[in-house]
Amino acid sequence: MKTTKHAAVNILFAIFICFNSYAANVRTVLWFPIVNGLVPIKCDFHIHTVFSDGNVWPTTRPLEAWQDGLDAIAITDHIEYLPHTNDIHVRFNRSYDLAKPIADQLNVVLIKGAEITRGEPPGHWNAIFLRDINRLSTEKYEDAISNAVVQGAFIFWNHPGWKQPNRKSVWYAEQQKIYEAGNLHGIEIVNGSDYDPIAHRWCVEKGLTMLGNSDIHEPISMVYKGGVQEHRPVTIVYAKTNDIESIKTALFLKQTIVWHKDLLLGSTNLLDSVFRGSIKVLNQPLSFKGQSRVVLQIQNFAPVPFKIEPADGNKEFSWPTKFTIPAGAVVAVDVKSLRTNRVGRETVSIPVNVENLNPLPDQPLKTTLEFECEFSSLK
Amino acid sequence: MKTTKHAAVNILFAIFICFNSYAANVRTVLWFPIVNGLVPIKCDFHIHTVFSDGNVWPTTRPLEAWQDGLDAIAITDHIEYLPHTNDIHVRFNRSYDLAKPIADQLNVVLIKGAEITRGEPPGHWNAIFLRDINRLSTEKYEDAISNAVVQGAFIFWNHPGWKQPNRKSVWYAEQQKIYEAGNLHGIEIVNGSDYDPIAHRWCVEKGLTMLGNSDIHEPISMVYKGGVQEHRPVTIVYAKTNDIESIKTALFLKQTIVWHKDLLLGSTNLLDSVFRGSIKVLNQPLSFKGQSRVVLQIQNFAPVPFKIEPADGNKEFSWPTKFTIPAGAVVAVDVKSLRTNRVGRETVSIPVNVENLNPLPDQPLKTTLEFECEFSSLK
Amino acid sequence: MKTTKHAAVNILFAIFICFNSYAANVRTVLWFPIVNGLVPIKCDFHIHTVFSDGNVWPTTRPLEAWQDGLDAIAITDHIEYLPHTNDIHVRFNRSYDLAKPIADQLNVVLIKGAEITRGEPPGHWNAIFLRDINRLSTEKYEDAISNAVVQGAFIFWNHPGWKQPNRKSVWYAEQQKIYEAGNLHGIEIVNGSDYDPIAHRWCVEKGLTMLGNSDIHEPISMVYKGGVQEHRPVTIVYAKTNDIESIKTALFLKQTIVWHKDLLLGSTNLLDSVFRGSIKVLNQPLSFKGQSRVVLQIQNFAPVPFKIEPADGNKEFSWPTKFTIPAGAVVAVDVKSLRTNRVGRETVSIPVNVENLNPLPDQPLKTTLEFECEFSSLK
Amino acid sequence: MKTTKHAAVNILFAIFICFNSYAANVRTVLWFPIVNGLVPIKCDFHIHTVFSDGNVWPTTRPLEAWQDGLDAIAITDHIEYLPHTNDIHVRFNRSYDLAKPIADQLNVVLIKGAEITRGEPPGHWNAIFLRDINRLSTEKYEDAISNAVVQGAFIFWNHPGWKQPNRKSVWYAEQQKIYEAGNLHGIEIVNGSDYDPIAHRWCVEKGLTMLGNSDIHEPISMVYKGGVQEHRPVTIVYAKTNDIESIKTALFLKQTIVWHKDLLLGSTNLLDSVFRGSIKVLNQPLSFKGQSRVVLQIQNFAPVPFKIEPADGNKEFSWPTKFTIPAGAVVAVDVKSLRTNRVGRETVSIPVNVENLNPLPDQPLKTTLEFECEFSSLK
Repeated sequence: MKTTKHAAVNILFAIFICFNSYAANVRTVLWFPIVNGLVPIKCDFHIHTVFSDGNVWPTTRPLEAWQDGLDAIAITDHIEYLPHTNDIHVRFNRSYDLAKPIADQLNVVLIKGAEITRGEPPGHWNAIFLRDINRLSTEKYEDAISNAVVQGAFIFWNHPGWKQPNRKSVWYAEQQKIYEAGNLHGIEIVNGSDYDPIAHRWCVEKGLTMLGNSDIHEPISMVYKGGVQEHRPVTIVYAKTNDIESIKTALFLKQTIVWHKDLLLGSTNLLDSVFRGSIKVLNQPLSFKGQSRVVLQIQNFAPVPFKIEPADGNKEFSWPTKFTIPAGAVVAVDVKSLRTNRVGRETVSIPVNVENLNPLPDQPLKTTLEFECEFSSLK
Repeated sequence: MKTTKHAAVNILFAIFICFNSYAANVRTVLWFPIVNGLVPIKCDFHIHTVFSDGNVWPTTRPLEAWQDGLDAIAITDHIEYLPHTNDIHVRFNRSYDLAKPIADQLNVVLIKGAEITRGEPPGHWNAIFLRDINRLSTEKYEDAISNAVVQGAFIFWNHPGWKQPNRKSVWYAEQQKIYEAGNLHGIEIVNGSDYDPIAHRWCVEKGLTMLGNSDIHEPISMVYKGGVQEHRPVTIVYAKTNDIESIKTALFLKQTIVWHKDLLLGSTNLLDSVFRGSIKVLNQPLSFKGQSRVVLQIQNFAPVPFKIEPADGNKEFSWPTKFTIPAGAVVAVDVKSLRTNRVGRETVSIPVNVENLNPLPDQPLKTTLEFECEFSSLK
Repeated sequence: MKTTKHAAVNILFAIFICFNSYAANVRTVLWFPIVNGLVPIKCDFHIHTVFSDGNVWPTTRPLEAWQDGLDAIAITDHIEYLPHTNDIHVRFNRSYDLAKPIADQLNVVLIKGAEITRGEPPGHWNAIFLRDINRLSTEKYEDAISNAVVQGAFIFWNHPGWKQPNRKSVWYAEQQKIYEAGNLHGIEIVNGSDYDPIAHRWCVEKGLTMLGNSDIHEPISMVYKGGVQEHRPVTIVYAKTNDIESIKTALFLKQTIVWHKDLLLGSTNLLDSVFRGSIKVLNQPLSFKGQSRVVLQIQNFAPVPFKIEPADGNKEFSWPTKFTIPAGAVVAVDVKSLRTNRVGRETVSIPVNVENLNPLPDQPLKTTLEFECEFSSLK
Repeated sequence: MKTTKHAAVNILFAIFICFNSYAANVRTVLWFPIVNGLVPIKCDFHIHTVFSDGNVWPTTRPLEAWQDGLDAIAITDHIEYLPHTNDIHVRFNRSYDLAKPIADQLNVVLIKGAEITRGEPPGHWNAIFLRDINRLSTEKYEDAISNAVVQGAFIFWNHPGWKQPNRKSVWYAEQQKIYEAGNLHGIEIVNGSDYDPIAHRWCVEKGLTMLGNSDIHEPISMVYKGGVQEHRPVTIVYAKTNDIESIKTALFLKQTIVWHKDLLLGSTNLLDSVFRGSIKVLNQPLSFKGQSRVVLQIQNFAPVPFKIEPADGNKEFSWPTKFTIPAGAVVAVDVKSLRTNRVGRETVSIPVNVENLNPLPDQPLKTTLEFECEFSSLK
């Protein structure tokens, strides 16, 4: 019951009605810490609409992103794969143009992009921060990439393992050539529900930006229920401000963390900063009397749990073998001082592994938990 | 990552990939009892796609319906309101034709429909079970209705209160005329999140079929999270079998119940049958010794809670003033026999009101709870 | 598997094992704003253990409170009602003494209290901040109250409507006498799942402190699932710091808000401060061009939704008739400027009613929503 | 607010008030199939109360069990470990006696048991179906076991790995001796949150009954939120009827399945029967035309998902590599016939592994999925 016969089409009016008739006007808050003055921009750079092989109208994409707590998205319809042409008059920049007003209204940064779509190799590539997608509709994919480069695009390889045997990614000569030309800037290490450890390793070894995107074709809420727990894959871009130029700069600087299910994937430095910026020990100083037990309380402000495994070599404290600091909550951890003659105030630093923060596949972040202690003798 | 460059478009292949890459392949089970040999067909008869002012591609609608546990839907794009014509080559039967193969694959009954869209009065009307929607594209709405009638359509008035002051529905001369001609068969008493008690009363007074539909324009999961708890409005049609002819027959016979949030709206007879068919007293016979207390256990198999208020005039038992038999669970109710000299086996019938089952607005269903008892004296 | 035969009993060791074997070591964060330098202390002042008619051991109560995000509790076992004496050697201060070490470990403030338990009138009364409960075990309730007063206790009347016809609270001569003597300091306006509007009104009229407590006998998680959504009733005490003396002072100063389901009940001033301190308009200044629509984004940091109804008399803006700012999320609200000739920067103040914040029963808080606007003409 | 000063203590009255004041009166339905005429009795045979080192009053245990959908429990307080003796007058049969009336009221079968508690070896043992626990309070554990055997008890070894290095279970000479004497009848392969694959293997190799119990000391809802998803470990006993003698007989006959998180652990035969009895292919016969794709719909009536991996050697169909039939829902599975010349009606049997049904640790159940097909040629 959205319309009247005579009303002019008004996209904002449509939002209005949508927002107030329905329960669609709620945005999940996804808090991540500021790191060295850089703000976390939550992004999804791989999204389809009915203008290629997706199943939703472009205006819906910024609204979905806003609900999901994202700050920026790229709509990246296929250039070469257009199954709806019997019904839709496809123009390459059209999905962007339709989505732009609603994105502006909601303060969601909308980035113009496209998917260069070929068989394997070289497979599928996204170019984002484009000015005109028409220029990428070329017979040879090399020309499409060149024409994207000319526009200053950030170019990444999508889901490298998709069509490979056993989904094991293969680095073909085609990739090598584009990489050597400096035109491969990043790789999707997460696409939809799939994490690709080979691609993850390539990013580290070859100095490429890590990306995690939904590649959504359906309505997003059909696949991810949303909220903190059932989120789509997110590329967290650490940028100076939330605008299109800052995001682009940060992508070229590889300042990203990929958030996939309960995993954070990224550089050791960035992961370490996010971990430290997300937690707070609440009950400092901990007061130990001799070999007494104390309950350490740690709050986690982030929407990601931290799965902690104290590292070996800690001889000062007895400590649980594993514990989780749940997303958005406080954990209590039982700690026992093992040294009896310790007296006075001291900052303790416990080496820990964070199992779900991975600089490399299956490699936990090695970091420390720090807290103030007050040691006294038993008497 | 749904496509290859060279593959023929294959709608089933698309479902396949969708189902197995994503978590989209789960259907909620919505169980309601069989009543007098009639089976409950869960339906939504008011749905839009990009072919009028909706925001999803037609193929998505049967998949959403299947996930939500529905058995039948009608896609009912506007005939007169077509805001996407700059981009879409609108043909009136096209959304049905696109959705039909996937509906067939999923065993979802797809009904061809259309929304006849005028200002108030007469407002918006749905005609369903059409053969050719083109015949309804007429200048005068009366002709559109006539041409629907000729096709054997079931015709209902949508959201009567939508444009009225304070959303209070008004029965205009236009409605009266169509009603008298026998061409008004039902009314939406629930549209989206809105329940219309005036329309509910009209259905009872004028002998019209009650309908509750989503009128969804967005992806359904953007508005209703799904599952048993956050379901869209559903018209439960009690039909002989789950096929298009049986559903149509049942609609003309007014064999519907509207499921809206926690409410069931319908005729006293049908509501009473659904209530009785949904519950079972587990621990019969209840064994009372004198004025003893017994815990009565009642299971509810339906996805709707029953909010019970024992009616006045029950002098044989002490009973809680209110209790709820939750959806899909068992409730324990404390019952005390007040008569001391009762002895022997007896079927007890307790008059109760079911507050959320309404034959008329705010009027609870009056029915009884029955269970076997074994009374003995205290000695 | 908690014990060994020979181990000394060690309450902290028990916590340790509990915390690490099970998932019991998580605390829900309940954030409320600081108001005029006062911090929100989340309290439950009415709790039972096996030492009267409760069903859990005293040590469990501080752990439950910690999990539920509370800061302070009073254990208030009945003095006169002791159904477990066949099995338990009841000593009045014992439940406090058993619970104290674990409360200390978890930084939960534990307040010594007791329930003075008589038939109606005068019914049940809690005295908290006691030194010795034994002194309250007297034949006459007046003596019990006097002996509590001597210890500096804060004294409140529990669930006044419990035993009254239709649960309607009655102010008996007994209450009047204690009130006139200055020994009635507060009333439970919420007890368990029941809100008592009569008691609420009495607190306002007679200048008494409003309290909302669980009166829990069972394990708390058997009745309230916990987390933000299914919380027990909470008395939020606005105190200088989180210590026993500050809480006591604040209670005598009536600086409380009762959090019951989605309701906040308290003084207009305190409710207004909590509302203003909990929300933030994110996208200021809103930029209006002529009569354009703008989407206002409001974040709610509190665990309580705010149900907003714009008040009458707002002629400058078109505004939805109702909307909710959900707990811990952002809402989008469509706003339209109605004045075309407005130009320049301006702070707009919209009068609103907050329906679920009640200074008196069913009376919404009247307050304003304020945000910066930038008005420009259409050209 | 449960009591008045003068009321007689009435346990049923207490239930009554509990049920109607609070939301505690709801029971989760845990449906499992009947297998060869045997009914699934859902049990927990290891539970503590304040009468040993637990933290809840005995009456609460049957109520918790009823809420959790269980049919039978054993309260098994320690005989030798009694940390509450300063406060509680411990009598060994007392927790059973206190819990019995409420268990009877709720139709929960209550089994008298006790935990024989020694250091390692032999560790902790439960004896259930006892008549008098006092007889088990002996200096030598061998005598306690003998005195349990005399009473016809079923005796099992609790959490064998608890105190062992790295929690790896060790079969000591003490175990061997009791086993050879025929007095070791079962082992806990699941205790609380811990699954013990070594113990699982022992049960299979040595012909012992598999048990999975909560060993709960806290309120159960503090550790397991309940409902289908967050259930405690359950021993499903396949017995002739739901009474104490049938349960005992079935335990001695090893007719158990242990339900732990998403795992079912038990004999191949029983697991296979449960799998087959829990699912139903809804859309038979599947109609294949040549190499067409068909969507197979499978409903799962059980509260456990089935994680299916089609086994190798299936050359007739293309089939997803993995899929899950979710608990209580329907899954859609895309199936493609690979044989083109197949014609006519046929029952197809697909070999599958069910990954979360384990006759031995990490060993999936090998079984088949069967459904009717109708094959026709493409023309």
